[in-house]
Parts: sequence; C-alpha cells; structure tokens
Amino acid sequence: MKKLLVELGERSYPIYIGSGLLDQAGLLTQHIKSRQVIVVTNETIAPLYLDRVLKNIQGYIAEQVILPDGEQFKTLDIVSGIFDKLLTCKFSRNATLIALGGGVVGDMGGFAAACYQRGIAFLQIPTTLLAQVDSSVGGKTGVNHPLGKNMIGAFYQPQCVIADADVLDTLDDRQLAAGLAEVIKYGLIRDAGFFNWLENNIDALLARDKQALAFAIERSCRNKAELVAEDETEADVRATLNLGHTFGHAIETGAGYGVYLHGEAVAIGTCQAADISRRQGWLNDADVKRIIHLFKKAGLPVTPPKEINAGRFLELMAVDKKNSDGQIRLILLKQIGAATLPVNIPQELLEATLKSYGRT
Amino acid sequence: MKKLLVELGERSYPIYIGSGLLDQAGLLTQHIKSRQVIVVTNETIAPLYLDRVLKNIQGYIAEQVILPDGEQFKTLDIVSGIFDKLLTCKFSRNATLIALGGGVVGDMGGFAAACYQRGIAFLQIPTTLLAQVDSSVGGKTGVNHPLGKNMIGAFYQPQCVIADADVLDTLDDRQLAAGLAEVIKYGLIRDAGFFNWLENNIDALLARDKQALAFAIERSCRNKAELVAEDETEADVRATLNLGHTFGHAIETGAGYGVYLHGEAVAIGTCQAADISRRQGWLNDADVKRIIHLFKKAGLPVTPPKEINAGRFLELMAVDKKNSDGQIRLILLKQIGAATLPVNIPQELLEATLKSYGRT
Repeated sequence: MKKLLVELGERSYPIYIGSGLLDQAGLLTQHIKSRQVIVVTNETIAPLYLDRVLKNIQGYIAEQVILPDGEQFKTLDIVSGIFDKLLTCKFSRNATLIALGGGVVGDMGGFAAACYQRGIAFLQIPTTLLAQVDSSVGGKTGVNHPLGKNMIGAFYQPQCVIADADVLDTLDDRQLAAGLAEVIKYGLIRDAGFFNWLENNIDALLARDKQALAFAIERSCRNKAELVAEDETEADVRATLNLGHTFGHAIETGAGYGVYLHGEAVAIGTCQAADISRRQGWLNDADVKRIIHLFKKAGLPVTPPKEINAGRFLELMAVDKKNSDGQIRLILLKQIGAATLPVNIPQELLEATLKSYGRT
Repeated sequence: MKKLLVELGERSYPIYIGSGLLDQAGLLTQHIKSRQVIVVTNETIAPLYLDRVLKNIQGYIAEQVILPDGEQFKTLDIVSGIFDKLLTCKFSRNATLIALGGGVVGDMGGFAAACYQRGIAFLQIPTTLLAQVDSSVGGKTGVNHPLGKNMIGAFYQPQCVIADADVLDTLDDRQLAAGLAEVIKYGLIRDAGFFNWLENNIDALLARDKQALAFAIERSCRNKAELVAEDETEADVRATLNLGHTFGHAIETGAGYGVYLHGEAVAIGTCQAADISRRQGWLNDADVKRIIHLFKKAGLPVTPPKEINAGRFLELMAVDKKNSDGQIRLILLKQIGAATLPVNIPQELLEATLKSYGRT
C-alpha cells in the first residue's frame, strides 16, 4: 500500500492506494470519529461492494443511501434525498458520511457532507479509475444545473481517500477508458515524462495490468495532490487541471447529462484545446497528432458531436467557472507537459477550432 | 459611523454601523471586485430599499432576485431559483451577491453565494434588527428542512456587513421585538452589564430611540464578533450563541415555519432554558423572573405553544446541530451573564421543564 498526503494544513488527509484495501477495516475506522455512519453509493456499486464496506463498520449505527447511477442524476434534488435520510435517522453534526462509488457519487456525497448541518466528516472510497485519479482528490464537490455542469457546490475536503485498485476489475471498458482521459491529462499539463510512459504502456493499462494501473493511479494522484496543496480553491495553478474541461462540460451539458461520460467529453475537449494551442503557435502538428493518437488508443472519442455546432458551443461555454465577468477563458498547452493558466482566447481563434476541428 | 472588525485572518471583514449608510455608495462598492452584481432581496424590502441600493451600483451589470417574504420560504427550492437567475445571466465566479433584507434573505443569499460555482463574494445589508445584531454577522448561511431548522447550509463569511440603523424606521413592532430577543441573549450569555443596561433602557429601545438602538446594535455585534473570531465553526464557545435556540427551533419547526418569528421562538426557548438552569440549581427564582420580565417588556411571548406537548418537543429536539450521536445537548445559564457550553441534560429535568414551564 502507498500512502500519499494531500498537504492542506489542518485539512490535510491521506490517499491510500493499493490492493485489498476495501477489506482493511482499520483503514476506514481510524478516520471515523462518531457512532453514526452513512454510506452513500449507487445501484451499480451497491451489489458489488456495499456489504464489504458495511462489514468494516459493524458496531456503528450504519445507514445507507443508494442513488440511481448516472451523471443525469447529479442534481440538487437527489442530494436533497440524502438530507432527508440523514434527518429521518436523526444524524448529528459529528456523523460521518462515506461516499462509495464513482465521481458522481463522490461529488454528491461530498456536497451533502459539506452542507448537512454546515459540514460533517466524509470519506471517499472511489470505485472508478476516474474517481481514483481525479474527482475523489482535492475537495471539489457539487452537482450539475440544467444550464451548466458542476455549477453548484463547495470546496470540502475528505478525511481520507481509499483507492483500492482491485475494484477496477469490475469496471467496464468504457469507464476504464474514461478514467484514462484524466490520467493522460496529468501528463499533458505538467508531467511530460508520464505522458511518454503512457504512450509506451497504454496497452498494459487497457489490459488492466495491476502494476501499470497502480503506477498510473499513484502518479496521477501525486500530480493532483501537489496542485491542490499549492492552490486549494483554484485561484491559480489548480485551474490547469481543467484542460479540455470547458469544451468537455459544454459537450456534457449540450448532449444531455449522461450521454457522454465525463472522461469521454474531456478527451474530446482536450483535443479541441490542443487544436487551439496549435493555432496559437504553441503546439506543432506532430504534438497534436501524438495527443489525439493516445486518446484514440485509449478507446476514447476525439471529435465533438455533430449536433453541437460552433454557436451552441459558444453559448454553453459562456457559463464556465474560469470565465471572468462573462469573458471565456481556457487552459491551453504551451507544449506537452506544460499548460497555461486560464487565458482569454481571441474569438476568431476559438471559432476556427469550433468550426473546423473534427468537423470534416 | 462605527466600524467593527470580525477578526478571522484572511476572512476578516468589517461591520459598518450608523445612520445614512445605505446611500454611501463607496461603502458598498469598495467591497465589489467585479462588474457583475446580483442583489437578492424580498417582496417587502424591495419597494422600500432596492432602488437606493441599485443607485449605488450604477455602471455595474446589476441583476436582482426578489424572494417571497417569510421563514416558510427559506428552502432549497427557493435558493435553486437564485442559481437559475445567476446562470441565466451567465454570472461568473468573480461576481458579487448582495443580500438585502432580514435574516431569511441573508441566510439564503449567503448560502447561494457559498455554493454558486463553489463560492462567490457576498455582502450583507441587513434590514431588520435581528439580522443586524445576529444573523448577518458570523457567516452562518443555509436553509430549513421540513424536519429541522437550518439543517442545510455552510459557514461562509461576507466581505462586509452594512447595518444602517435608519432602516429600522420601517420595521414593524413585532419584527423589532423579535430582534430584541437576540439582543437580550448577548446580555444573558456573556455580558451582565449589558443585561442591566437593557433592563433600564428597554422603553427607549421600544420607542426606537436612535442612540439607544445604535448602542444596542454595536454592543451586540461586538459580542458576536468576539465569539465568532474565537471559534468560527462552532466547535466551542460560539455554541453559547444558541441559548434558547434548541427549544426555539423546535417551536419554529413544530408550529410550521413562518408562524413564529425566529426571535419570538428564541424568547420562549430562552425562558425554557432558564427554567432548566434553575432546576439545575444555577439560576435562582429571582433571576428567572428578571429574564421572563425583560422578554415580556420587550413585547415577546414567553410560553411555548400548547399544541407542542413535551413528547413532540423531544422529537423535534432530537434533530439539533449541538446534539452528538443523537444525544440532546443544551446551552444553559450558570448565572445572568454566563452561559455553559453544550451540556447533556438528564432526561427527567428536561421533561420536567417541558411539562410544567408555561403549561399552567
């Protein structure tokens, strides 16, 4: 087992990465300071792993909430159902919430924990690659709004993250690929060596080679932990984690939540960001090809959906957390392994990419 | 004008207290760092003060949300309407929200600001005595749940609080009295000298003597600012501000939100807490009489509603943020001017008060 620390002063917490962690009761219970514990999970994960987690907390007053599965259910209404359960069970402010599932469960469980009685403790047990390498780390919690993704939420850090690589055995190929999109992102924004490693090991990752996966998870979490430690609330460098996300969120919102997996939309969006970066004169043609090729090899889509035209993209991108006073700002690439901070994009450049990249 | 500072490190902010502050544009605009500004107010306050506030922010992109008036509308659904407006107007993360109104508007506006894009700046312009002396200071934001008051929320500090004593001219007598309940509370929990002053000046306050009101507001805010600075997230001494609130919240929830004003419910609850404190042997009969007498003189109710019997009280009090693992805990008085931290209450003592105090 590896243990990484996210360094945030009194809000610091460990990420445990390894095999068989789900059955190590002590790993979990050392971070539970109360008798009341609620596990939030979804209908896909519950039959697979809920009993194993509950077994670890025998002797506690344990409740559970099983959410429907899918990005389309990441709403304020569904979070409200978690509040109903907590209140019906008379859970106190010292209760603990365990989010057991992928990014959607983690985001909603974390947001419920952030808001219930103005904040209760919570633990993340991510069960998808995407959640293990990205969404469970860093304290971003929240829900979608019909007009924009992740528009309602809070920065709220967990007590710990338990990333058990064994749970990836039950992940379907599409979900695995979606996770790889965020893994590749770390290489692109700040870790060229990791990008090279990914090019050489993508087949092993797709074959679910345990060693390769463990390495990729740890390297990804280390990159993320460093950025989060440096800039918890995304005033600065943490924004680079949003490479491809402005396009990606527009795709998710525009196509309807749940049609594209988050990682799929990010893969397409990153290729669009690479295309603009080339138009800016930062990436060359060969760089862009390498990037698109790696996403493709990972089994990810790389072209935007036809039904979202340039005009609709602009409309959807007008609502984004990096925007300032209504001006669209994007993370771009100076080179493979080096992202920019949010930059204002000349309108004609943005339109050129929206109209031509992936449109032939 | 007086300026008090709530000392919270990088989250420190000033409270401005005085006359004519609503028309001092610079007071407001020095705390606005963006072009996009949204004013959240309600249907009672809008016709009285909205135009005066909007006049101060000419030149900004100003939007407004006018909420229905009353505690029964302090819900997640209504906050959701604020998100709709912000997103429809494409407001960015650097936008500023101004909460113009009483405690309900401040709590909801603050919570919307805390959650919109994981946090935008907000300013409080409290327009009731209760909001000026209590709810606008200290960063407690949130909404009610059918099963419990203020159960969903966040600690989120404003950029500043502007308390203009002139707005109290339009406050009806019932709202003024409700504010005095929280004013009296400060005397009871930590400021015996202020309690004595209140006994001697309650008539001047009820006659809306400007000097007396200004003194009471400042003294109250100073007490609150000290407690908040010492204990922002209510791990310790801040909890003393909840004197009477466990009973009070039960009354508000049990009677139906909007039937009792918050201050009215707190007045009753404080008398109940005083009754238990007497049974504990801390207050004597004369203390309890003084307390009840002052609330009565302020025009406040002092006995619990008949329809909430002891059993129902216990049920409602089982959900309270001070509870720990389901055990009811209360703030009591050691003497006038000195509150306890949350204490577990022997069940028979609690039941004795619930069954006999104010029940004859």
